[in-house]
Amino acid sequence: MIYSEVNLEVRYYETDQMGVVHHSNYIRYFECARNNMMLQMGYPIEKCEEDGVFTPIVSVECKYHHPAKMGDKLKCVAIVEKAPLAKLFIKQAVYNQYNVLCADGIVVLGFIDKVSGRPIRCPDILSKMIEQHIND
Amino acid sequence: MIYSEVNLEVRYYETDQMGVVHHSNYIRYFECARNNMMLQMGYPIEKCEEDGVFTPIVSVECKYHHPAKMGDKLKCVAIVEKAPLAKLFIKQAVYNQYNVLCADGIVVLGFIDKVSGRPIRCPDILSKMIEQHIND
Amino acid sequence: MIYSEVNLEVRYYETDQMGVVHHSNYIRYFECARNNMMLQMGYPIEKCEEDGVFTPIVSVECKYHHPAKMGDKLKCVAIVEKAPLAKLFIKQAVYNQYNVLCADGIVVLGFIDKVSGRPIRCPDILSKMIEQHIND
Amino acid sequence: MIYSEVNLEVRYYETDQMGVVHHSNYIRYFECARNNMMLQMGYPIEKCEEDGVFTPIVSVECKYHHPAKMGDKLKCVAIVEKAPLAKLFIKQAVYNQYNVLCADGIVVLGFIDKVSGRPIRCPDILSKMIEQHIND
Repeated sequence: MIYSEVNLEVRYYETDQMGVVHHSNYIRYFECARNNMMLQMGYPIEKCEEDGVFTPIVSVECKYHHPAKMGDKLKCVAIVEKAPLAKLFIKQAVYNQYNVLCADGIVVLGFIDKVSGRPIRCPDILSKMIEQHIND
Repeated sequence: MIYSEVNLEVRYYETDQMGVVHHSNYIRYFECARNNMMLQMGYPIEKCEEDGVFTPIVSVECKYHHPAKMGDKLKCVAIVEKAPLAKLFIKQAVYNQYNVLCADGIVVLGFIDKVSGRPIRCPDILSKMIEQHIND
Repeated sequence: MIYSEVNLEVRYYETDQMGVVHHSNYIRYFECARNNMMLQMGYPIEKCEEDGVFTPIVSVECKYHHPAKMGDKLKCVAIVEKAPLAKLFIKQAVYNQYNVLCADGIVVLGFIDKVSGRPIRCPDILSKMIEQHIND
Repeated sequence: MIYSEVNLEVRYYETDQMGVVHHSNYIRYFECARNNMMLQMGYPIEKCEEDGVFTPIVSVECKYHHPAKMGDKLKCVAIVEKAPLAKLFIKQAVYNQYNVLCADGIVVLGFIDKVSGRPIRCPDILSKMIEQHIND
């Protein structure tokens, strides 16, 4: 299993007139956690794109449990349990500073060739890296 | 069934460095479609909030089928099939100008008292309005 | 003078916990008005980019006069008074449905070659189009 | 003089199809730097709001010097040189990890009573805090 977390503070512009973080921003926190995981594995997303591979989102599921607020210090988590073939499944969660679960969900990524736009398998460099980190 | 649609043009800032609309923005398009539905029923979301009720998101599911691009004219759809008790289920979809399905999903809303923050049932005014529009 | 306006409704996610549209979103409304102007002149921004020219922002000035709110129907204006050489100056404004000025400002655009990233003069096709529309 | 900085990594969703951070996001980085300054002075923005005072933006000026990119680690700066009466002037800047200036500008804040919406002077607690930190 790969477990990765990144700490993010709620930003004022992320709140809405309900006085809490707008629900769409958790989808963005999820992305920050995924990209942080890539960075920690030594293969940042911008390197992956330079290597000719885009990773478009196939699907997102998000359940909202507790609202995050201005002043909150969030822990944003990405978990990968299996090396990808055509798709990469990532479990995601956002906790506040009291370790209360704010939101969790599952994001599925695909892989496409940057030039042709065609779906491809997960590039070897990435799947091997994931496999290695899962077994660490 | 209540069917409502709103036309939105892709905005430049909604694109990302993949050259297409960032996946989080479909969650926002969904919201525009829902709020447009409320407006068309004669009970805009800001009126609902003035009446003391917030409608926080319980969950979001979104599947991505085809990327929207700068220049696209989108049709954003909200469908309600059943009057809510504690929760309101809304089917959502985004189509481009060629009627290609870009994304679809389901959003579930809850209802809370604006002052106490406590979960409540769907306010009568809203549930009756929905019921009436479903039967129209 | 080229005068162009586009109608935009305030979106819920654009509000913040002050209960009004977050100030950064007017900068985005300005962009919508500019891109709408390009579209109306028959040369949409995505075509300009396909032709190899990016139009990065050089500077933005924005004064805030009256807060826009959820439910507001905004008129977003772009005005060009002079054909560009190296830079394009655009006057911008946002009005609400009561014709109250919410914000105004000036945005300056430059032109760069998409491949080299180097600053260039305004492409002929665009400067001629602007000149022609100014004289109409 | 009060000098405050906060480190922010570029987020993928902040990029646009030019392949760099969208210009509106620097306005948001500026805000993060301001709110971080408030936090460091021991008076976070959410506390200020609880105390009944909103701080709406009066004006924003931003000059763009060098594009920030995915992978960049930004230093976002807020500088205050004078205690506010009716308005607070803040110098702002964003640097990348090579200390290259990406953008700078000036943001002016006002103060309004949260309930009445009326302009007020800077609350004593805040102006004294700023004065004290300027003299430190």
